[in-house]
Amino acid sequence: MPTDALTAVIDDLPLVDHHVHGALGADVDRAALEGMLTESDRPIPEWMTQFDSQLGFAVRRWCAPVLDLPPHASPQDYLARRTELGTVEVTRRLLAASGIEHYLVETGYRGGDDLLSPAGMAAASGARADEVVRLEAVLENLARDGVAAGELPRRFPEVLAERTADAVALKSIVAYRCGFDFDPQRPSDPEVVAAAGGWLRSGGPVADPVLLRFLLWCGIDRGLPLQLHAGYGDPDVELHRCDPLLLTRFVKLVEPSGVDLLLLHCYPFHRNAGYLAQVFPHVHFDVGLGINHTGLRSAAVVAESLELAPFSKILFSTDACGPPELHHLGALLWRRGMRRALSAWVDAGEWSTSDAARVARMIGRDNARRVYRLTP
Amino acid sequence: MPTDALTAVIDDLPLVDHHVHGALGADVDRAALEGMLTESDRPIPEWMTQFDSQLGFAVRRWCAPVLDLPPHASPQDYLARRTELGTVEVTRRLLAASGIEHYLVETGYRGGDDLLSPAGMAAASGARADEVVRLEAVLENLARDGVAAGELPRRFPEVLAERTADAVALKSIVAYRCGFDFDPQRPSDPEVVAAAGGWLRSGGPVADPVLLRFLLWCGIDRGLPLQLHAGYGDPDVELHRCDPLLLTRFVKLVEPSGVDLLLLHCYPFHRNAGYLAQVFPHVHFDVGLGINHTGLRSAAVVAESLELAPFSKILFSTDACGPPELHHLGALLWRRGMRRALSAWVDAGEWSTSDAARVARMIGRDNARRVYRLTP
Amino acid sequence: MPTDALTAVIDDLPLVDHHVHGALGADVDRAALEGMLTESDRPIPEWMTQFDSQLGFAVRRWCAPVLDLPPHASPQDYLARRTELGTVEVTRRLLAASGIEHYLVETGYRGGDDLLSPAGMAAASGARADEVVRLEAVLENLARDGVAAGELPRRFPEVLAERTADAVALKSIVAYRCGFDFDPQRPSDPEVVAAAGGWLRSGGPVADPVLLRFLLWCGIDRGLPLQLHAGYGDPDVELHRCDPLLLTRFVKLVEPSGVDLLLLHCYPFHRNAGYLAQVFPHVHFDVGLGINHTGLRSAAVVAESLELAPFSKILFSTDACGPPELHHLGALLWRRGMRRALSAWVDAGEWSTSDAARVARMIGRDNARRVYRLTP
Repeated sequence: MPTDALTAVIDDLPLVDHHVHGALGADVDRAALEGMLTESDRPIPEWMTQFDSQLGFAVRRWCAPVLDLPPHASPQDYLARRTELGTVEVTRRLLAASGIEHYLVETGYRGGDDLLSPAGMAAASGARADEVVRLEAVLENLARDGVAAGELPRRFPEVLAERTADAVALKSIVAYRCGFDFDPQRPSDPEVVAAAGGWLRSGGPVADPVLLRFLLWCGIDRGLPLQLHAGYGDPDVELHRCDPLLLTRFVKLVEPSGVDLLLLHCYPFHRNAGYLAQVFPHVHFDVGLGINHTGLRSAAVVAESLELAPFSKILFSTDACGPPELHHLGALLWRRGMRRALSAWVDAGEWSTSDAARVARMIGRDNARRVYRLTP
Repeated sequence: MPTDALTAVIDDLPLVDHHVHGALGADVDRAALEGMLTESDRPIPEWMTQFDSQLGFAVRRWCAPVLDLPPHASPQDYLARRTELGTVEVTRRLLAASGIEHYLVETGYRGGDDLLSPAGMAAASGARADEVVRLEAVLENLARDGVAAGELPRRFPEVLAERTADAVALKSIVAYRCGFDFDPQRPSDPEVVAAAGGWLRSGGPVADPVLLRFLLWCGIDRGLPLQLHAGYGDPDVELHRCDPLLLTRFVKLVEPSGVDLLLLHCYPFHRNAGYLAQVFPHVHFDVGLGINHTGLRSAAVVAESLELAPFSKILFSTDACGPPELHHLGALLWRRGMRRALSAWVDAGEWSTSDAARVARMIGRDNARRVYRLTP
Repeated sequence: MPTDALTAVIDDLPLVDHHVHGALGADVDRAALEGMLTESDRPIPEWMTQFDSQLGFAVRRWCAPVLDLPPHASPQDYLARRTELGTVEVTRRLLAASGIEHYLVETGYRGGDDLLSPAGMAAASGARADEVVRLEAVLENLARDGVAAGELPRRFPEVLAERTADAVALKSIVAYRCGFDFDPQRPSDPEVVAAAGGWLRSGGPVADPVLLRFLLWCGIDRGLPLQLHAGYGDPDVELHRCDPLLLTRFVKLVEPSGVDLLLLHCYPFHRNAGYLAQVFPHVHFDVGLGINHTGLRSAAVVAESLELAPFSKILFSTDACGPPELHHLGALLWRRGMRRALSAWVDAGEWSTSDAARVARMIGRDNARRVYRLTP
């Protein structure tokens, strides 16, 4: 099998996107689209355009042809063509061309209003879709439905069990809400009740470290694989507090439970994540969000992710959310990064082609099937 | 426009060096020159030469031909030719060949004795020069001139306004003096007066966190763009306390003021700086000092700087200080790094040539013109 | 001297491995061998093999031919051939082919039972071998032999002097035992006695920060070069507490003593180590352990190690421990990384070939000879 065959294997590989959000359900104008090509939640200043970024250039280079435009089409032309085709057709084309066969859709972000549900993703793409449930959203919904602080330690696990009856995984955004430098121990019921009292009165997103730790440990008890946002994200994070190494003690406490931990994105701490994935059997990681936002530089990020971790501990995700361009590019850029790294190693005679193809399949699909117990 | 044309654009681009110090005004011997090819302030051990470093090799490779020597000339030959030509001619040649059209000269380091002033830089290079004023130096000068602690909260802003009447920016070296893990809040006047009392009695460089925070907030009030040394520097820094991510809370507090923050150098935390520049509209960064001192490896540093940040948030600087070799190489190595990265992307059909040329102009010149309101 | 000649210089250079452990003295089965191809001390899960890693692929690619197998031989074939040849012959072949002429063997790990002693390494390889003594092991042995807490401040330096009469260096694993975020001051005798009292009663590995600091300062007093494990290692480390930058204050306190500090491995903080090696005359570093475990990606790690540090401050080590595959690959991959980096620079006309050859000799051999006062 020569290098061309390896390229074909990587390009044609049906992928399991183990952490993704729904595609947009409705049309967006240029300002809204630009706002979704960055993790910033601030208005884009009038003296710049978010299209002038690695991600913006990647959209123009690789998504334009899927919409029948030439590569490097101008943002104006791209937006016009997008509008002309309509959201349904744009989404259909970009998802289909991504080659993703199975989406594990995290549904806790932005509610269900403007993003497609797992069923909507399946319908729009012809692929399978399963659900990943965000722990913080379950608690916030329970608070909205009404719960007494004293009931929480008993009630939350019940609600979580109901809510995740068909889910394949859990997700925590403790990184956003308080960072990873928390006391990793399971809080006691009285501590939880005390913390819940204050929070239920004030409302809003849950940010109390005691409640966030309670959620994590309820998640561990639930027994599903637990995804943790790590590293790069929106301005809510204090990024230096989201280095996955800060989870080391939590990781050790979780180990006896047998629950798999999935560190998401991790940029620019992906080498640190590779260390954790090497030394702890239950730790896995991806470089999801970091791929889209570094555009063609993601080849370097993908290569750096292939250092310390055994190949059975690395997964593929897009973390796409909203514009289907992100679902498309997340897959395309991952394939490009893997192709570049693995082809060079095969060309130099340093990896065999069959090993390279096998590793691509593991990371792109098979490891996710194993971790999440997906039936092919 | 083929790749050769892109190369020409990058090589011929007149640059705005948005953070630089004066070139040497007088001759130096080998020991003094070697001492300025490192951020170390320790005597160079007898068993080594600082020429055996990436920067030293870069001087021999790229500066030697500007002085009519062959590439890779020996340090001995290089020093001899340098002496033969004399400081004025060496400086004239190296600055002219750098293609820098505008220097923003930070004048707070080493006073005006042995480094050229902005006017001196303009005279030596034929380029424009403006001044960047170092906050800590203004305070230390005010202390030398005599000021009572109780007057400081009122007096310093007045002095700063006078001192910066013609300046284009401010600079802070809080990284050197106490690191970034400080309380980001503006200190109260009584706190400032109390801290000033102790410092004015003891004298010396200002290192009290309260006074340093006072300077930062007076700088914000002044309204000029604020440059912050971040990352790599001399042994005064505790480098792990100079990660720009540690500034996140300060960055958020500054945001409503509309003042631009410029994170300088940032190595080896430049990816972290890229994150801040993506999510906060007023944050910009460069990899200045890290370019010269990594020599030809700066191509990797430049490429890593082109990841998360929108291209309108990345600037060029040399941070050269002393030997005009540093001014020359800072420009030359930046052009080399940009050429390598962008040419590869254009050759692969992944960026258009016109986009690549435009990005080079933004980073090398136009972003600085916008941030500092420079008239072309 | 063209590039081919540079390749020959690097490939034929006799190396000083300045930090290594003994090779295995006895046969191992597949499970045991896999367990030594990772820093994890956990059982390898049944759904994976440690051969599916960069290190595992490197063993199959480069060690298989030394055992007369084709490159990329399967793990089964590799293990079978290994058994067929026997440990003595496998070790002899792999060590001889490494081109290491001098091993500085750290003897504090795993005692002398299953790893070859320095004399055993010399006998198996035909190379020279000297000893590096681990401070913590000396104290733990002294405790086993019996010592009163009150005697320790006087007794330990005596025992250390005896134990290191023929040693070339000391080693500390304070990174594993408490991390680098310790009080860098020398503890007082009463503090040491108080800490020793508790530890001598409870036994076990020494992890008390006071005792670990006592060991470090006794090491400094002994005057031999002091090696410090930094960065990547087994799950005992909390990796974020092993960033060598956290040693900055200790480094400054040690400086007046004139004792050389050697930061080992440092991955993924090797750029940080390069900073320390630039600004402090007595700091040196290597990327030892990080080379083997990143396999062919070690070319990137080696290149990243060639940034800030003067070339006289960078050393070569394998940190191999157990399987002689690690001794072999540590040397092979270092040569490969240096060859790739330096050849590219020479081919581009950016370094001279003679400079490149000289730098390879410095890092691979000459710097170690100078630091450890080895006679050629």
